[in-house]
Amino acid sequence: MTGTNQVLVCGGAGFVGVNLVRVLLSRGTRVCVADNFSRGSRANLREFEADPRFSVCEVDLADPSQVSDLVGQLSKSRPLDEVWHLAANSDIPAGIANPNIDLKDTFLTTVSLVNALRSVGTRTVYFASSSAFYGDLGDIELREHTGPLLPISNYGAMKLASEAFLSAAAESHLEQVMIFRFPNVVGVPATHGVLLDFARKLRKDRSHLEVLGNGTQRKGYLHVSDLVTAMLHLHDTVTEKRAVFNIGAVDAGVSVRQIAEGMVALVAPDARLEFGNSNRGWVGDVPKFHYSVDKLLATGWRPVLDSQSAMTRAMHEVARQEGLL
Amino acid sequence: MTGTNQVLVCGGAGFVGVNLVRVLLSRGTRVCVADNFSRGSRANLREFEADPRFSVCEVDLADPSQVSDLVGQLSKSRPLDEVWHLAANSDIPAGIANPNIDLKDTFLTTVSLVNALRSVGTRTVYFASSSAFYGDLGDIELREHTGPLLPISNYGAMKLASEAFLSAAAESHLEQVMIFRFPNVVGVPATHGVLLDFARKLRKDRSHLEVLGNGTQRKGYLHVSDLVTAMLHLHDTVTEKRAVFNIGAVDAGVSVRQIAEGMVALVAPDARLEFGNSNRGWVGDVPKFHYSVDKLLATGWRPVLDSQSAMTRAMHEVARQEGLL
Repeated sequence: MTGTNQVLVCGGAGFVGVNLVRVLLSRGTRVCVADNFSRGSRANLREFEADPRFSVCEVDLADPSQVSDLVGQLSKSRPLDEVWHLAANSDIPAGIANPNIDLKDTFLTTVSLVNALRSVGTRTVYFASSSAFYGDLGDIELREHTGPLLPISNYGAMKLASEAFLSAAAESHLEQVMIFRFPNVVGVPATHGVLLDFARKLRKDRSHLEVLGNGTQRKGYLHVSDLVTAMLHLHDTVTEKRAVFNIGAVDAGVSVRQIAEGMVALVAPDARLEFGNSNRGWVGDVPKFHYSVDKLLATGWRPVLDSQSAMTRAMHEVARQEGLL
Repeated sequence: MTGTNQVLVCGGAGFVGVNLVRVLLSRGTRVCVADNFSRGSRANLREFEADPRFSVCEVDLADPSQVSDLVGQLSKSRPLDEVWHLAANSDIPAGIANPNIDLKDTFLTTVSLVNALRSVGTRTVYFASSSAFYGDLGDIELREHTGPLLPISNYGAMKLASEAFLSAAAESHLEQVMIFRFPNVVGVPATHGVLLDFARKLRKDRSHLEVLGNGTQRKGYLHVSDLVTAMLHLHDTVTEKRAVFNIGAVDAGVSVRQIAEGMVALVAPDARLEFGNSNRGWVGDVPKFHYSVDKLLATGWRPVLDSQSAMTRAMHEVARQEGLL
């Protein structure tokens, strides 16, 4: 971090972005957030407004000229040292119904951004990829080098495409590309995900909770605070030209049933749980997977919260966000 | 192949396309070639013009409306049973200088095509991917599941992106996606590659031949006739929903020096060879690699020509094409 003066956080008004920006500012970094505010919101950024090192720019990151203008503007007074690219469509089912959503918001944002950096001399990109990247490989342990990579959602496909584009750029004008493959992350401000889904259903009707799938899907969850700590730990310690890290929980995870039961117990103890029949929640959902974070653990990082604790904390946070507590 | 009535070959006027179309027509299939004629040429298709089962359409495959019109038109009178997608930028160095070339011609062609197929009910796509896909993994043996996938050229990156997009589509509206990772292929009509480069340099000046790199790069080469045989063999025998096959030579390959010496001996015996210093020819070139075709061999296919024989035959073909013999 030493010497890092100014960074751009793309998608900085979204769930992970806001949590990252908070920590970056606390470390003394000058931060510009670029967001199209399709999922992220200005309200999420209100806490930073008084900070003179914070700025925000509404921009369609898939539009090459808008991105080019933005990075040109930022580079005028001081170098733009690095970019954190977290912008993406985060609604996987929407991206399956309409593949152009992920094409534009998940992939073409990466293309426009990387191409724009060429002219201003920014050489370092941190990229939020996804475990959806791996598709459904069954019981294989998912390590950073695992393949074949046959994603089952456009979201996963366009994250893979973005990684590939960044990797090629590291051969030409970028000097360092660090790729974080995100796990299932929980916390606030929640914009999507199982907890928000449950909270909103229960806010509408506290008598029952309908669960997509049969509830047996078990996944590891990481609290967003641990995710941000992991990213900054890697940022500070890893110097490889192209570095890829799975980030995730280190335990066996929790089932959808446990999450549903926990949320109901917290905000609507009398609600009836109604499960579906499939072990998949929706097309593109991967029922369970073994996600190796050995490479990350070898760097010395450990999560503070396990899946169950992360979920419990996030349940309270999301319930509060949705006015249920 | 039984029951295959009509197929679309995208990029059918290019090097591999022409060779594929010739065999498809000989098998009795109705073939429409779609090409933007940026690299492929109408002259390459002249031999098919008299065949009533052959048609050709000039189209920018990256343009969704043009592709949609084309497949709609083709589907009017009879079903469009399958699509062979071979269209791509094939000039790797050009794609590194300008990443938008591969974005558009190698990746967005795939997107437009796959999206267009949704409405006409075509469920089967054969896709020409590339060994460039794997990037530079050093001495690791490259199998279909090998990773991490960190391409070093935009061409490789956009092939990877295309594979990912196809894979996701196989979860929604496609029923079968077969991916062929092409090796170094030689033969005619040559539009790019080391043989054409040497032939053109020698046509201009028979006194010397400048070789990019130090000549030690050794690669396996497949003759295009063997490539087409391999693809059709897989087409006829493999039924997996998502199938990925490396296709390539089964021997240790030949060095650039051997190729240069062979070409000089054939067309300009007095030419002086001039080598560079690097073991890479250009940015994005992978010096040597171990490309496993075990999965393909397990299906019973064998190449007729080894690397040296493929190269010798192609040398004559390219020299003849360029008017040097």
